[in-house]
Amino acid sequence: MTEPPRRTRAEQRRDTEARILSAARETFAELGYERTTIRAVAAAAGVRPGLVMHYFGSKEELFASAAHLPADELPPGDPAQALLSALRRRLEGAPVASLAVLRSMFTHDEAAEGFREAGREWLGSIERAIPAGQPELRAALIAAIMTGVVVDRYLLKHSALADAPADDVLELLRPCIESLAGAR
Amino acid sequence: MTEPPRRTRAEQRRDTEARILSAARETFAELGYERTTIRAVAAAAGVRPGLVMHYFGSKEELFASAAHLPADELPPGDPAQALLSALRRRLEGAPVASLAVLRSMFTHDEAAEGFREAGREWLGSIERAIPAGQPELRAALIAAIMTGVVVDRYLLKHSALADAPADDVLELLRPCIESLAGAR
Repeated sequence: MTEPPRRTRAEQRRDTEARILSAARETFAELGYERTTIRAVAAAAGVRPGLVMHYFGSKEELFASAAHLPADELPPGDPAQALLSALRRRLEGAPVASLAVLRSMFTHDEAAEGFREAGREWLGSIERAIPAGQPELRAALIAAIMTGVVVDRYLLKHSALADAPADDVLELLRPCIESLAGAR
Repeated sequence: MTEPPRRTRAEQRRDTEARILSAARETFAELGYERTTIRAVAAAAGVRPGLVMHYFGSKEELFASAAHLPADELPPGDPAQALLSALRRRLEGAPVASLAVLRSMFTHDEAAEGFREAGREWLGSIERAIPAGQPELRAALIAAIMTGVVVDRYLLKHSALADAPADDVLELLRPCIESLAGAR
């Protein structure tokens, strides 16, 4: 067995940044924008508060970075199937980045803007995959269904959706997604 | 023609309360909980701030009253048709009470609780109307779709849903609602 290669300083920096961003998303999701502090994020990431400030400058900038959701482009192929897989990922684990943004967006304009920007790329990739009339509105409704499912399952927790198995949810939503995705 | 009957003092009081509640819902929806003041609600209702305090006691109590959404029980008959009519009402005019609650619920526990309570009655009436297996999860998914449509159309405004005609939205969502409502 060969020894693992020593990590470069740039790699270490990237790892630390990623750990801070991940801690920031969880903290913003749990506490919302107003109540999240640099100190709390640093504690969750296991680093000194000064390091968070050094990398991100301010709470506003840290939020803007955390709110930039990872790209979630629809892969080529059957759009309904790809959308159901994307929905399965959101059902199997709380999407902390979108929860952080959703929880904060009603009090903080940067949060709403972060959500809209990430949403635009995602919407565009759905639109392009839909082989039917009104692709923009169809994509918008698919996105709205995903927003509603995430909000009700993870934030409102007021219905059977809070703890339903992913398979049951996907089976019931399959005809919806297929009809909106213009499946033939 | 007969003269309109003179309003009693109790009727006048009810009118004033209703006007204050309506102004409160619009102000909470627009500004969110934190930034809403008794003074702003009073101005929107065209009354003195002291009168709002006299009727409701505090901002917290005013919010609790405003967040108690009007009952929206599903009428008897074809559940899919009744659900599509309920959706049409939400598409044709911003549901200010639910927007007030949604916008505030992430920062304010009373708001979340108000939403859950109103939601439970609404969910129960959908469940009872569904003639298919898993009525609880079906009702939960229908409610989630409505939440998502309202949030995307009126709060996020990031997609074609923001200004799509109600008829187009209803036509595209009809197969979804019918399949979830267990239409035969």
